[in-house]
Amino acid sequence: MTSIKDKILQRFLTANGEPISGQQLADELHVSRTAIWKHMQALQQDGYTFDTVKKKGYRLIAKSNKLDEMQIATHLATARYGHKIYHYDEVDSTQLVAHELIRNGAADGTVVIAETQTAGRGRMQRPWDSAQGQGVWMTTIVRPNILPHQAPQFTLVTAVALVHAMSDVCYNFKPSIKWPNDILINGKKCAGILTEMVAEADRIQALLIGTGINVNQQQADFPEELHSIATSMAIEEGEKIDRAIFVAKYLGYLEQFGDIYVKQGFVPIKKLWEAASSTIGKHVRATTLREVIEGEAVGITETGVLEIRTANGEIKSVYSADIEVQ
Amino acid sequence: MTSIKDKILQRFLTANGEPISGQQLADELHVSRTAIWKHMQALQQDGYTFDTVKKKGYRLIAKSNKLDEMQIATHLATARYGHKIYHYDEVDSTQLVAHELIRNGAADGTVVIAETQTAGRGRMQRPWDSAQGQGVWMTTIVRPNILPHQAPQFTLVTAVALVHAMSDVCYNFKPSIKWPNDILINGKKCAGILTEMVAEADRIQALLIGTGINVNQQQADFPEELHSIATSMAIEEGEKIDRAIFVAKYLGYLEQFGDIYVKQGFVPIKKLWEAASSTIGKHVRATTLREVIEGEAVGITETGVLEIRTANGEIKSVYSADIEVQ
Repeated sequence: MTSIKDKILQRFLTANGEPISGQQLADELHVSRTAIWKHMQALQQDGYTFDTVKKKGYRLIAKSNKLDEMQIATHLATARYGHKIYHYDEVDSTQLVAHELIRNGAADGTVVIAETQTAGRGRMQRPWDSAQGQGVWMTTIVRPNILPHQAPQFTLVTAVALVHAMSDVCYNFKPSIKWPNDILINGKKCAGILTEMVAEADRIQALLIGTGINVNQQQADFPEELHSIATSMAIEEGEKIDRAIFVAKYLGYLEQFGDIYVKQGFVPIKKLWEAASSTIGKHVRATTLREVIEGEAVGITETGVLEIRTANGEIKSVYSADIEVQ
Repeated sequence: MTSIKDKILQRFLTANGEPISGQQLADELHVSRTAIWKHMQALQQDGYTFDTVKKKGYRLIAKSNKLDEMQIATHLATARYGHKIYHYDEVDSTQLVAHELIRNGAADGTVVIAETQTAGRGRMQRPWDSAQGQGVWMTTIVRPNILPHQAPQFTLVTAVALVHAMSDVCYNFKPSIKWPNDILINGKKCAGILTEMVAEADRIQALLIGTGINVNQQQADFPEELHSIATSMAIEEGEKIDRAIFVAKYLGYLEQFGDIYVKQGFVPIKKLWEAASSTIGKHVRATTLREVIEGEAVGITETGVLEIRTANGEIKSVYSADIEVQ
């Protein structure tokens, strides 16, 4: 159920800056003018700015800087994903919140977003910096009918969705995928994916698709030692990005490619992935739990496994590793 | 830290029914006699029965009927498993409690036990009946260094541990394993295993080994329609089983076989499993998500997959199914 406040916000977000009178809102929503006034106060507290146009009513001057449900909903064109969004100013980790929601039966496509995380994590429990209000620190709960050993493939599906969404809202760069879970722009890391799962031994109950995306940070927002390896969409694009439009696009592609993957398998995704990869054809150094493999990344298999041709011509399969592209 | 109350209980549990004076306990534990008296009251409220032997002190007459931490600890001989036990009179599901504990970093071998569950579940979210105080409704959190696709093998490791523990405390029957997750006695179901996991796409964070074991139910405790298919250890043994001793044995075998599996792989477990299986060599009907496969169960592979030879001689691999042994 959309609240009255959200309905008012929705009207303003789709009014293209035109004024709407309090009386008109009261009539449309069947509440008193006093109620409308109270909700307008609440929206201003949420960070939305309005001015008053004489005899015409309120006009939305500036959106909240927050990535809240209504702003995303305005741009969303999905059947399931993002229909329920939990937005927080601050959480320990959106993955941890999502685990709790899964425990309580959260539906396929449920989203958790935070303006910042105090304990954001990447793969292997590595810490992840979640700059306040600048990125997309988000977990999407998906419930595809796939087996636990297929979960790594969903990381690749997600990577493809991310580069498509980035390319839809940015024109000055071409993002690329570094196997298995990083998105690079001009060789610098812009986003990471953390895929977790809750599963029975032979059946996935839910995947938690965590995405940490640097969107609107400026170079000065990154520590000096990261300048050569980290970037944001805004730095590379040259202007600020509307996070809500970007998230709506991403959810659209994730649903679309996720459904293709579940129905048709990994092969169609493999093609999209290869087209966006910056790993294939390069000389790489892969550090796995057991060994370091060096050689040319020749491709990924039809199950998403990276294949590396070593100096002596042997092809080695890499299921999980940190990759250094040389 | 063991509490004073637990230390007192420990003394009585290991005193073989001999009396211990309040003064002696006060001296040993460096507390007042009043404190000892208060803890004795609390133990009686927990369900322990004592009598008083003139001039000699308290004597433990009857243990609590609960499967609490101290009773198990008295019999435990493990390096890690069961060193932290969360015991509840009633929970929704020990698996759900374990998920919460994992979120908070619970150690390898942490155990959750409940006297009853209001929402116990088997595989595929099927309901599981957890008779009050009669069974072992328990989840063991383990953190083996294995990959998500290996998780089904840990179900087989657990099955082997269960039949060994049962055989240690019962003499009148030989339990057998029905692939993949049931323990049968004389053809009737006595226990089930539910293995769940929390994992990154390529790394298990924790397995939740759920075990629902019918221990002390009498036939009248089962609904009429289950009499031909369900049983308990006590029914088949002909007498009540000490649940604490049984759980301590099970945790011992689970740790032992789990460590062998992680270090040496599935091959040594496969041998133990086959020796205890009632599925191999039988005509079976396997219902998978996609099809029904009928034929002779010829064995399990070195990765724990069931192989069935169909009427036309073809060998089919079954990763996940409901099995009917005919």
